[in-house]
Amino acid sequence: MLHTFFKLSTVALFCSTAVAGAALTNAYAAEAQTERHTVEVTTVADGLNFPWGMAFLPTGEALITEKSGSLRRVGLDGVISNAISGVPDVVYKSQGGLLDVAIDPDFGENSWVYLSYSEADPAGGKGNSTAVARGKLVGNNLQDVEVIFRGAPKYESGAHFGSRLAFSPEGYLFITLGDRYSAMDDAQTLDNHHGKVVRIWPDGSIPEDNPFVGQEGALPEIWSYGHRNVQGAAIHPQTGALWTVEHGPKGGDEINIPVAGHNYGWPLATYGIDYDGSIISDKTHVEGTVQPHYYWLPSIATSNMIFYTGNEFPAWQGDLLVGALKASKVARLDLEGKRVMHEEALFEQVVEQRIRDIEQGPDGAIYLLTDDRNGKFIRISNADD
Amino acid sequence: MLHTFFKLSTVALFCSTAVAGAALTNAYAAEAQTERHTVEVTTVADGLNFPWGMAFLPTGEALITEKSGSLRRVGLDGVISNAISGVPDVVYKSQGGLLDVAIDPDFGENSWVYLSYSEADPAGGKGNSTAVARGKLVGNNLQDVEVIFRGAPKYESGAHFGSRLAFSPEGYLFITLGDRYSAMDDAQTLDNHHGKVVRIWPDGSIPEDNPFVGQEGALPEIWSYGHRNVQGAAIHPQTGALWTVEHGPKGGDEINIPVAGHNYGWPLATYGIDYDGSIISDKTHVEGTVQPHYYWLPSIATSNMIFYTGNEFPAWQGDLLVGALKASKVARLDLEGKRVMHEEALFEQVVEQRIRDIEQGPDGAIYLLTDDRNGKFIRISNADD
Ligand SMILES: [Ca+2]
Ligand SMILES: [Ca+2]
Repeated sequence: MLHTFFKLSTVALFCSTAVAGAALTNAYAAEAQTERHTVEVTTVADGLNFPWGMAFLPTGEALITEKSGSLRRVGLDGVISNAISGVPDVVYKSQGGLLDVAIDPDFGENSWVYLSYSEADPAGGKGNSTAVARGKLVGNNLQDVEVIFRGAPKYESGAHFGSRLAFSPEGYLFITLGDRYSAMDDAQTLDNHHGKVVRIWPDGSIPEDNPFVGQEGALPEIWSYGHRNVQGAAIHPQTGALWTVEHGPKGGDEINIPVAGHNYGWPLATYGIDYDGSIISDKTHVEGTVQPHYYWLPSIATSNMIFYTGNEFPAWQGDLLVGALKASKVARLDLEGKRVMHEEALFEQVVEQRIRDIEQGPDGAIYLLTDDRNGKFIRISNADD
Repeated sequence: MLHTFFKLSTVALFCSTAVAGAALTNAYAAEAQTERHTVEVTTVADGLNFPWGMAFLPTGEALITEKSGSLRRVGLDGVISNAISGVPDVVYKSQGGLLDVAIDPDFGENSWVYLSYSEADPAGGKGNSTAVARGKLVGNNLQDVEVIFRGAPKYESGAHFGSRLAFSPEGYLFITLGDRYSAMDDAQTLDNHHGKVVRIWPDGSIPEDNPFVGQEGALPEIWSYGHRNVQGAAIHPQTGALWTVEHGPKGGDEINIPVAGHNYGWPLATYGIDYDGSIISDKTHVEGTVQPHYYWLPSIATSNMIFYTGNEFPAWQGDLLVGALKASKVARLDLEGKRVMHEEALFEQVVEQRIRDIEQGPDGAIYLLTDDRNGKFIRISNADD
């Protein structure tokens, strides 16, 4: 935005010597002005190898995945743990690897941690698919690991795995998936998981009221279809509804509010204008498919999103914050109910890497992961006067 | 938008010699790419002295106001008529002068033309206010001219007169007004017309079901209040509802869908961040006031808007096109029902002057007036392959 400015404080925040045994954290802070708040942007930790997902533990530490297959604890003091053992093997290739992480809503009682990842064909074929496993986090180990979802079919591709995890207030687990790129037409048929959002119980069982339960030829996990590559998901804090964000081809990144059994159009209808130079569809409206709630053209390359509910940034409460890879920014959508009243570009000048994940911390600050070989774990806090 | 490009065709479109007696038109055309259509931008006429409003006659000519007080017919061949006689005297000062023009929905039968303008105090005081008069267009004369609305109070200011005219499908006439800048607090009280939208019958009489009819101390013309300076208005083609667009102070231009009797917040609540360096209000939400449907920050300086319904640009049907003074562009809001799904900046590179009015022509092309001493009447047509 034209009126956004920033200044680098270039304040080296040397860690308090009271942090015994902490690794040297080269945290630095930059300040940026936004429409409603002045923010401080602090790199809490760097050196993460293409981090993809994060979830906060009751201890205040973040669990962070690295795409190459490691799950680590990272403290707000910047200390990065050794890799947690027991994580399933992943296919680390192109967009595939260890992807999202979520903790059980009853984690304090059951210690379940959920991981999405690209899984090889157990039969030894060349294909792979998105899978979700869970295990109990005990010390630095995942125990009793079980696969609760396995995408079908196994397919030979390094692209479009989804896959964000989101628990609804009723305890359902939503898993967002991708169309595997060259299998895009599968997004319109119900006999596979490509281009779908699925809904299961946390133990992998299938809710009886899922929309396609009992329909011949349809996979009963499916919640909604006609998606391209859904990498972001969040539950609306008031309505409890799932909201998702997906990449368009070249343009046409979409926010949707997936309703059970509905068709979100891909690849029949899209606001993307071309893809590798060729037209996917010149149609934006196709009967029987649902229009996006909001879309971007050109693409900002959306990653994850959150509804902000904390006290750190009062003027952002209720807003939707969407991370962007290409634009290296967070799009703030000022919501009134479900309606987008305004979009603001946040942190464009102060976060130079692609933003892969965004979460709200237990402290109300906003945390980002950047998609880089030297990936960063960034904290955004309030610096208003 | 980053992906918008333009090329100047620099094709001099010499008028056909068949246009007998036409003034030399120095029309030129430029082509521009937009997300969904390629457009040709043609200057039909220039040399207009700060044109403000336009309305198309059944003949296909446009009636165009010049702020200094002249009303003219302008043909699509570029021929500009002499000033039409019978137009009321106006206070031509700062933002004041001859402003909008509308023709009666039954113009073919009754020939009524409606004009909004800043009117001096008939009692000889220094104040002025927005007034609306109508007269029958016969040849190049306005006859039987009568004032059907006179804003109260008369107030000494050269700013914030509104004033757009819009007929609803039921035949009501909406007049949008401004807060007169230094009288902004008046927008919250009902004993005056500052910062109001009013609704009257075309003969000036007051609809019995107006929201404040019979309320002591309230002016019965008032439809909605708490506005700042509403310079744009359009009737939704499906719902028949009035939509308005108003300037914020520094930032916070708003689209509203004014509901009878509702308070739109100014100056208690605004997304504008400051004004002449001082804060008007740090509040965006105030109980009892309605949030904007959509807003711009920073300000684009909105002028008029239309719902596009023509066949010239199929992909824009149903969209809201909002003219901007500061940004010299048209903001296209892609609507699904009432919901804004996406905003695109149109014509930024090919219209270099402030856009004061936008209308859809009987041919489905889009027409613009630019706010300049050498103001232009511009036609936007389809140049898709
Ligand atoms: Ca879609
Ligand atoms: Ca308002």
